Amino acid sequence: MSDHENPAVTRILFSPNDMLARKFVKDLMRENHLTIREDAMGNIFGRLEGSTPAAGVVLTGSHCDAIPLAGMYDGTLGVIGAIEALAALQRAGYKPLRPIEVMMFTSEEPTRFGLSCSGSRAMAGALTPEVLESKLDSGGRHFLQVANEVGYGGASTQDMLDATRVAEGAVSHFVELHIEQGPLLQREGVDIGVVTAIAAPAALEVLFVGDGGHAGGQLMPDRNDAGLAGAELALAVERHVLATGSVDTVGTTGTFEIAPGAINSVPREARLAIDIRDIDGPRRDQVVAAVLKSAEEIAEKRNVRMSSRIINQDPPATCHADIVEAVAASAGALGLSTKRMVSRAYHDSLFMARVAPTGMIFIPCKNGWSHRPDEFSSATDIANGVSVLALTLARLSGGSWPKAEL
Amino acid sequence: MSDHENPAVTRILFSPNDMLARKFVKDLMRENHLTIREDAMGNIFGRLEGSTPAAGVVLTGSHCDAIPLAGMYDGTLGVIGAIEALAALQRAGYKPLRPIEVMMFTSEEPTRFGLSCSGSRAMAGALTPEVLESKLDSGGRHFLQVANEVGYGGASTQDMLDATRVAEGAVSHFVELHIEQGPLLQREGVDIGVVTAIAAPAALEVLFVGDGGHAGGQLMPDRNDAGLAGAELALAVERHVLATGSVDTVGTTGTFEIAPGAINSVPREARLAIDIRDIDGPRRDQVVAAVLKSAEEIAEKRNVRMSSRIINQDPPATCHADIVEAVAASAGALGLSTKRMVSRAYHDSLFMARVAPTGMIFIPCKNGWSHRPDEFSSATDIANGVSVLALTLARLSGGSWPKAEL
Ligand SMILES: [Mn+2]
Ligand SMILES: [Mn+2]
Ligand SMILES: [Mn+2]
Ligand SMILES: [Mn+2]
Repeated sequence: MSDHENPAVTRILFSPNDMLARKFVKDLMRENHLTIREDAMGNIFGRLEGSTPAAGVVLTGSHCDAIPLAGMYDGTLGVIGAIEALAALQRAGYKPLRPIEVMMFTSEEPTRFGLSCSGSRAMAGALTPEVLESKLDSGGRHFLQVANEVGYGGASTQDMLDATRVAEGAVSHFVELHIEQGPLLQREGVDIGVVTAIAAPAALEVLFVGDGGHAGGQLMPDRNDAGLAGAELALAVERHVLATGSVDTVGTTGTFEIAPGAINSVPREARLAIDIRDIDGPRRDQVVAAVLKSAEEIAEKRNVRMSSRIINQDPPATCHADIVEAVAASAGALGLSTKRMVSRAYHDSLFMARVAPTGMIFIPCKNGWSHRPDEFSSATDIANGVSVLALTLARLSGGSWPKAEL
Repeated sequence: MSDHENPAVTRILFSPNDMLARKFVKDLMRENHLTIREDAMGNIFGRLEGSTPAAGVVLTGSHCDAIPLAGMYDGTLGVIGAIEALAALQRAGYKPLRPIEVMMFTSEEPTRFGLSCSGSRAMAGALTPEVLESKLDSGGRHFLQVANEVGYGGASTQDMLDATRVAEGAVSHFVELHIEQGPLLQREGVDIGVVTAIAAPAALEVLFVGDGGHAGGQLMPDRNDAGLAGAELALAVERHVLATGSVDTVGTTGTFEIAPGAINSVPREARLAIDIRDIDGPRRDQVVAAVLKSAEEIAEKRNVRMSSRIINQDPPATCHADIVEAVAASAGALGLSTKRMVSRAYHDSLFMARVAPTGMIFIPCKNGWSHRPDEFSSATDIANGVSVLALTLARLSGGSWPKAEL
């Protein structure tokens, strides 16, 4: 179920392999006695009924899509692991009070339409038809067209979004189990990360345009080399991030394309995509502003034209104290060590936090690696994460254990 | 005869459009009463016989191939303009003593095989079978295979190179007419550039490799961002070039590719191609050494792996005093202003200087632009260049004008 050979994973929204992954998830939910529902955006839910079916649901889940040549744990752990957590609770004879649902979100990764967290944005009412229809895939089609072809969607993008939005009070809590995607838990030998906040990225695109010319004939004083303007900006991003003095602030120039890109031509264009994240929204926005100011100064100094565009700039989210406490207590009951930490990666939790108290559980991953084929978490760490998730869901649901367990 | 729409010119060695251009050149030579010969590398010669046919030939010419999205004057002027110069000499009744030949060189531009001046290198005996066979096109084929398909080539690369090499004394002088590819003539209002030396480029490739990672999860102190190493090196190239204090030294980072090239991934690889030129060989080599030292220091500082490779590092060439004087005198006879100058762009003249006294004639080009679709020289400047070339060839051939002209 990947467009690349194992262990590299590439799973693009609504591609044949994504549809196979969806069937696999639904089959697994069914085998584990969960009642399946899918919404108009293709978010998939598997429900374990509670003794008070009308109560707000305790929701958990993550995503199964993967960027090109990624690994097999990012996202997938929080879907398959959550189904296993519900299976374990059923095996143990646990009876939920609030219903518990495990879900798989549609398109957490931005691969196909350049928009991350499409499913959770829509559930949170944080996605407009204008924005969604402005995003086209490489075939020039938009979300609704592709969704309708595979059996989701609706009569219009507005209808689809309206049908996906979560009603107020419908979700009582949201918890996501995920690999850390950072090195701290492994480095410090800690079993479980109790997430207290989720950083949100800003993404910018900056384009520098000069006049190019021949690499031999164009004298140095006569040049306005767009590539060197780009190089200065990439280094300025790093400098502004480090100037905050905060380990929670990160900035990356992940794409840097120059044109014409010939060894005997002075670069005429440089196009940079820059990602800046922080758990502190105002501090993150200060870095964004400083980077844009540097872009202007560099353009002025190097006599190149500059244009920039904010791709997205979402606020960060704070995890709810009730869930932070439930996760910490569950890990404690299992004798596992914990560390309170922030998530610097983007997750559907960021948007779910707008509609319900939200929290996350992290497990260690090898060297902090992710978004690469050698992404890895051990079976022990996975089992620990699933156990903590199961106990956390039980606590939040407020149900009852068999007498023998008390 | 271009792979892109006018005015953009793309003409790749032995492509259908290159073959059409070759046919056009040969037809034009034939119409102008020149005797055509082609060698094993596909260099094309059109001969105007002299009164002493066994004397070393006065040779002139340039190239008609063009990098992607280039202009219509670079190279082509020196082929079509030279045919017109020989036509004008014939119209004027000039009778050569030494034979005069106009030629079109094969593959001056490095587009297809990553090797510039293939034809003139081979003529000068400056190309080995090992080097030529190590260069593959994007289809994985080497020069001989492609040459044989279009009617050039030979039984082996060695045979082809042997057949192309110019015999000692066979060429008495070489002159090339070309657009300046720099801004000096236009800026100073001078008609004709008398070239005194030809700078030679060094070309290097540098690869930085780090560990990549997630743009959110990977903390700044834990990163070894190959893209930032590349950015520092591109700026170091500029710094080392400017530190020479010489306007004749130029350096360019013309390609800069990062992988994986996703906004949410820390760059794992950066591959730079760097071009450094000077008319002073030792000074050019000092800059090359300084750039390689910077690459090592940056790799050390940023904890990335680094490898580098010299693509080529040819010595510069000095134009022969006889030809410099012949060009200056011819321009003077026509009442045109002249400036002695160096060619900072690469030309076949660089290699022809190894087998014969060599010189070049420059005409102004708009804003010094070349290797771009809006490359431009005026009809007046072109006519001036062709007239100076015609008189220079006549002087070097040592023939006779009709009595009426004396
Ligand atoms: Mn991911
Ligand atoms: Mn994820
Ligand atoms: Mn050229
Ligand atoms: Mn040229």
